[in-house]
Amino acid sequence: MDFQKSPQKKLLKQYYDVRRTTENICKRLEIEDYVVQTKDYVSPPKWHLGHTAWFFDAAFLLPLKCPTKQFHYFKNIFNSYYKGVGEHWLQSKRGILSRPTVEQTLDYRKNVDKSVLEILDHQDLDEEYLKIIELGLHHEQQHQELLYMDIKNILFHAPFHAPYEIDSLNQPLDFKTLIDSHFVVEEGVYEFGQSEGFYFDNEFPVHKRWITPFELTPSLVNEVEYVKFMEDKGYENPKLWLSDGWDWIQNHKINSPLYWNKTEEGWRVFTLTGWRRIDASYPVSHISLYEADAFARWSGRELPTEFELEHFFKSTGQKDYLWNWSRSSYEAYPGYRPYEGLLSEYNGKFMVNQYVLRGGCTYTPEAHYRPTYRNFYRAYDRWAFTGLRLCRRL
Amino acid sequence: MDFQKSPQKKLLKQYYDVRRTTENICKRLEIEDYVVQTKDYVSPPKWHLGHTAWFFDAAFLLPLKCPTKQFHYFKNIFNSYYKGVGEHWLQSKRGILSRPTVEQTLDYRKNVDKSVLEILDHQDLDEEYLKIIELGLHHEQQHQELLYMDIKNILFHAPFHAPYEIDSLNQPLDFKTLIDSHFVVEEGVYEFGQSEGFYFDNEFPVHKRWITPFELTPSLVNEVEYVKFMEDKGYENPKLWLSDGWDWIQNHKINSPLYWNKTEEGWRVFTLTGWRRIDASYPVSHISLYEADAFARWSGRELPTEFELEHFFKSTGQKDYLWNWSRSSYEAYPGYRPYEGLLSEYNGKFMVNQYVLRGGCTYTPEAHYRPTYRNFYRAYDRWAFTGLRLCRRL
Amino acid sequence: MDFQKSPQKKLLKQYYDVRRTTENICKRLEIEDYVVQTKDYVSPPKWHLGHTAWFFDAAFLLPLKCPTKQFHYFKNIFNSYYKGVGEHWLQSKRGILSRPTVEQTLDYRKNVDKSVLEILDHQDLDEEYLKIIELGLHHEQQHQELLYMDIKNILFHAPFHAPYEIDSLNQPLDFKTLIDSHFVVEEGVYEFGQSEGFYFDNEFPVHKRWITPFELTPSLVNEVEYVKFMEDKGYENPKLWLSDGWDWIQNHKINSPLYWNKTEEGWRVFTLTGWRRIDASYPVSHISLYEADAFARWSGRELPTEFELEHFFKSTGQKDYLWNWSRSSYEAYPGYRPYEGLLSEYNGKFMVNQYVLRGGCTYTPEAHYRPTYRNFYRAYDRWAFTGLRLCRRL
Amino acid sequence: MDFQKSPQKKLLKQYYDVRRTTENICKRLEIEDYVVQTKDYVSPPKWHLGHTAWFFDAAFLLPLKCPTKQFHYFKNIFNSYYKGVGEHWLQSKRGILSRPTVEQTLDYRKNVDKSVLEILDHQDLDEEYLKIIELGLHHEQQHQELLYMDIKNILFHAPFHAPYEIDSLNQPLDFKTLIDSHFVVEEGVYEFGQSEGFYFDNEFPVHKRWITPFELTPSLVNEVEYVKFMEDKGYENPKLWLSDGWDWIQNHKINSPLYWNKTEEGWRVFTLTGWRRIDASYPVSHISLYEADAFARWSGRELPTEFELEHFFKSTGQKDYLWNWSRSSYEAYPGYRPYEGLLSEYNGKFMVNQYVLRGGCTYTPEAHYRPTYRNFYRAYDRWAFTGLRLCRRL
Repeated sequence: MDFQKSPQKKLLKQYYDVRRTTENICKRLEIEDYVVQTKDYVSPPKWHLGHTAWFFDAAFLLPLKCPTKQFHYFKNIFNSYYKGVGEHWLQSKRGILSRPTVEQTLDYRKNVDKSVLEILDHQDLDEEYLKIIELGLHHEQQHQELLYMDIKNILFHAPFHAPYEIDSLNQPLDFKTLIDSHFVVEEGVYEFGQSEGFYFDNEFPVHKRWITPFELTPSLVNEVEYVKFMEDKGYENPKLWLSDGWDWIQNHKINSPLYWNKTEEGWRVFTLTGWRRIDASYPVSHISLYEADAFARWSGRELPTEFELEHFFKSTGQKDYLWNWSRSSYEAYPGYRPYEGLLSEYNGKFMVNQYVLRGGCTYTPEAHYRPTYRNFYRAYDRWAFTGLRLCRRL
Repeated sequence: MDFQKSPQKKLLKQYYDVRRTTENICKRLEIEDYVVQTKDYVSPPKWHLGHTAWFFDAAFLLPLKCPTKQFHYFKNIFNSYYKGVGEHWLQSKRGILSRPTVEQTLDYRKNVDKSVLEILDHQDLDEEYLKIIELGLHHEQQHQELLYMDIKNILFHAPFHAPYEIDSLNQPLDFKTLIDSHFVVEEGVYEFGQSEGFYFDNEFPVHKRWITPFELTPSLVNEVEYVKFMEDKGYENPKLWLSDGWDWIQNHKINSPLYWNKTEEGWRVFTLTGWRRIDASYPVSHISLYEADAFARWSGRELPTEFELEHFFKSTGQKDYLWNWSRSSYEAYPGYRPYEGLLSEYNGKFMVNQYVLRGGCTYTPEAHYRPTYRNFYRAYDRWAFTGLRLCRRL
Repeated sequence: MDFQKSPQKKLLKQYYDVRRTTENICKRLEIEDYVVQTKDYVSPPKWHLGHTAWFFDAAFLLPLKCPTKQFHYFKNIFNSYYKGVGEHWLQSKRGILSRPTVEQTLDYRKNVDKSVLEILDHQDLDEEYLKIIELGLHHEQQHQELLYMDIKNILFHAPFHAPYEIDSLNQPLDFKTLIDSHFVVEEGVYEFGQSEGFYFDNEFPVHKRWITPFELTPSLVNEVEYVKFMEDKGYENPKLWLSDGWDWIQNHKINSPLYWNKTEEGWRVFTLTGWRRIDASYPVSHISLYEADAFARWSGRELPTEFELEHFFKSTGQKDYLWNWSRSSYEAYPGYRPYEGLLSEYNGKFMVNQYVLRGGCTYTPEAHYRPTYRNFYRAYDRWAFTGLRLCRRL
Repeated sequence: MDFQKSPQKKLLKQYYDVRRTTENICKRLEIEDYVVQTKDYVSPPKWHLGHTAWFFDAAFLLPLKCPTKQFHYFKNIFNSYYKGVGEHWLQSKRGILSRPTVEQTLDYRKNVDKSVLEILDHQDLDEEYLKIIELGLHHEQQHQELLYMDIKNILFHAPFHAPYEIDSLNQPLDFKTLIDSHFVVEEGVYEFGQSEGFYFDNEFPVHKRWITPFELTPSLVNEVEYVKFMEDKGYENPKLWLSDGWDWIQNHKINSPLYWNKTEEGWRVFTLTGWRRIDASYPVSHISLYEADAFARWSGRELPTEFELEHFFKSTGQKDYLWNWSRSSYEAYPGYRPYEGLLSEYNGKFMVNQYVLRGGCTYTPEAHYRPTYRNFYRAYDRWAFTGLRLCRRL
């Protein structure tokens, strides 16, 4: 293939790269690892592989009237939640499907790729279709991060806790902080959102907001700081907790972040490279919004809003390796318009009962990272790579 | 008693009046009606009577070191959710208690009243204690509205649907609208919140926000308009619904507002004065946030934020007789500080997973009504007197 | 009324007496006690009053074409489970009904009584109708015992644990045993079941069974003996338990009989006359089949079959004051034929997943007591007055 | 290996054969099929492979003080329910384990086999140990049938319904009936149970029972007969159903046997060789006890007891290819003594809330088949190959 400089050719190369990356993420797995669903919210890796192929099949090939021959068979089970494409398989039941096999799923991906690449290579596509390819690649990158989240959960539940990576990620990450003192912002009107380059519909339109003065800590809260909260009986003191959070830790007997385990030699943490001791050089991770909020209250601080975080990332150029919980519920920006057609279900219908996270994490693809990106989860979710940065009103 | 003009004497009179009002609301009930709990979220009227007495016992008499002699027995079962006062009875189990009897509960109220009134009449109280009395009276007024909500639910579930009131409320309410065209607001910085007179901690501090231009319909959506949404298969079209909302109507087989019933002669509505036909002069009521949002989307509009509603009520002087759902999650204002001590649990710990309503309803006590008041419920709650007003971005 | 000696007149007098007894059982209650439902399996006393009236309305007056004028209103909510009479109110929701009031329910009973007594007094009824009255009276006596069970549960859950009876039952019962050594039975064919006097369909027909040799302890296991089992960690040793039983005690955190409470001075027991210490003169009560079975295994014995118990009661004339758990599942006798029509649902449809108890208890009406009577509950039920007698194979 | 004629050598050969059979059953599966758990009651084939190896490890090698080196790692997750060997993995969570892999599990089997065969070949074992091997082989044969049940369920839930076998089982089975008229039995004392050859503890001791006269249909109810029940609205008529059964079909929306599907061309049935139309030459299968009981009631007959079935099989020599539901709850025979030690948990602790089935099915290993064998399931279970034969009292 000849990768020229036209937007379409660039997209063709990106398509090829992004798709390969997804498959590479799964390469270290055993067939058995592709199949299981450890929790309702975890998807089997096999499903991610199939769903990200289905996305191009349903949103690109189908409108172009050349869906794969397998589309008919897979349109239900690899549909995540798009009512516009008909019935879809129940999320919590993704782990009861032994078929299609991993091989059949990879074969499905090949068929989709073949059709997509051929079209990108030989047809002259309207802007509208290129946009769908671009969106599909960002969608696939979201699933790359989800794959890391889900693989971690699957390996954690399996006996013996086989590590996913033995070498490449074995050296400590360099969690560097670009600024060395509190980030202070004065009151005033600031702009938020994105209108250039690629952005999801939920980042649009660019709009103004009034900001009250605040300061943010330069670094994310680290694991050793979090242990101090635990040792001060943070998980036993109802005064520190939101009411829903207190009920949640009682009902689920929560007394530490997910993937933490207390041994005789202190707390240790399960990672994709295996178990290690807690370490002040790592941000605390895998905590719910409830835990983030309780920690903030315990430390006499509070959680920032998503806009305070966006302003921080835009102003400092700081890149975090862990998602920052904000106190902001996931809501439409004034003037928000969802995508049209099938993709109208991409973001808008989730804008209730979820909370926004900003920044990114170690497993967020580089090209996917931007200060206006809005990640969102339920207040109790914590299998994502979630952390927190503290805010103080001035 | 001699009701002089001092703030303390005024409070004494208010105390007397508000407390009598609560008891009068229950006077039309049978003993059996005081006891049952039809849903987890409904409390038996007997419990409201006891809890509002407990509030003064725990927050006023106890700090003054003269709790009633019954406090020891009731401190657990009439405590709603204050962890600071020890264990409390599970909310969903309030309906399994036959004791204390209604008579014993009213007797408890008398004892509390006797002590409170004696102190108000003869001691010279610090400002701090007067504040607690004032808060206790507003707390009791909140429970007056809850009593109407819960009594309606109890009578609705009982066979024969005995009406609560046969005369006093029988004439149609005059739902007048002070303005006759859309309420249009230009972009800019506006102030929100309250710092004068009585206000809850969650209305403070007064602060600025940037508002993008919008317009609001002058009236609440009425019952006949809502039927058009239903007849257009609004409850069967997933494109109109938030994802959580769609799951909710499927799981609970929801296809109309609460208390609506379809007969051969059309839809009819259960009210505290009995059943009546739907009527364009009544705002639609008893809908969840999900339904309000779906209706707004169907009509090409959207829900306003709580701040847009606050600005509307402040600017127009309009008084609604039904609560307006907003799209705003219940969150602390910048600089929010909860009450101290026991009462720190009053508002702050609920600031997650709930959505704000503004305005008021027919059963909101007059003295309790103000544009900055923030009511809040879960997105699926609808036994409150909830309605909606439509917003459009300009 | 003139109570002559004819069967119909005798029945008339019985009717009058049995019905008064039911009402007298409730006389000591507060109105509030009539209404609540503490557990799914407990019915509000008000419901028992209504249901036992409904029974005569539906099974006697209705076939005679003179149902009460209230039947139409109550036929749903006072129907326990008879699909033949149409829909019925969900058992677990009996406690959400504040109406009909206690007064209205008692008024309903009066109307039923008036009609039934007038018919019994002035019409010459066919045998078939007299049988229904007789069955209705035994049905009502079953509910008299259920009332005691349910009232006990209601008073237990209410704060302060008000005792039901302060005097009449206050003296210790005389749990006398007629025989002073083990009851030994040799192998052979024995007859079981009942065909004379009144009996339920499930006691019929009389039939033979082969019995293998066994011996029974003369007395029921007493409270002090049961404490020994508890002190020997009976509730912590999985080897003693049926698999379902072990899961049940784990899931419900069971570690003593129902209504037992450990204080600094040892175990005490809640009774209808209030709390008392455990006492070797009382049989252990309120245990599940699982607990009875585990105790038997711990003591090197086992539970008898229902036929071994029937033979014991027939042979010795012993009258127990507590129900004996048997190991026998509730099953039809060979040749069993259910009642006809509406009453076909009385017994037969429950013949699965339940276990038989034999004997009786302190609250079983005297006229209702017989060796062939088959009581039945789920293996985990224990709000009935359940105990055990040990068996050994010879 | 030299297979001589001594009991130990015979056992060695049996061991070898039975173990190979288990692995052969799984050979047609894809790796993915080994891993999933479609329902709480279904186990992944991988788990069956591991558990049947664990059985010999825990019950034979461990007492001989030579457990495999993997035992330590697998003793928890491959333990089904033996509390005596410590904690065990929750049954409903067997499908969340991706590790050990299928290869590791087969490797574990090889290690167990190597040790067991070496001991059988070279040591002179006490009778007691030979008994354990024999029990372990019958245990493994039970799991062979379970494998067919579970594989069927797994393939049924997977899209495309890949058949398990394409050839070997493709020809219709010859469900021959040895007798051509009703099987009539006169009243009297008969003997039941087993004391010779191999038998499980629950088949012992041989004992007498009185039998009342009855007759049994010579054949199992077939699929076309069952369709008549369905067409007569059998699933909609509450009078035909046990109360628990009616609740069960309502709650789970049951209106046909498991694995049945209605098409335009009539009912079809999923089998291990794929879909086929219903056929009068096949017994109806995959029905619950509730359905069997309702069918029997509809046809004016009833279910036999387990003893009537045992007598039938002993007297006629008939071999069924489908399990017969009996009305008998699973209960200990008089004088029953469970195995000792670890294996005491094999049968006895399940003797409550389950019902006995007699006969066998197409997938029951030949050497495992005998008239006294007691199979047992919950009344609602139907993924076993369950059917029914009708009984009439004489």
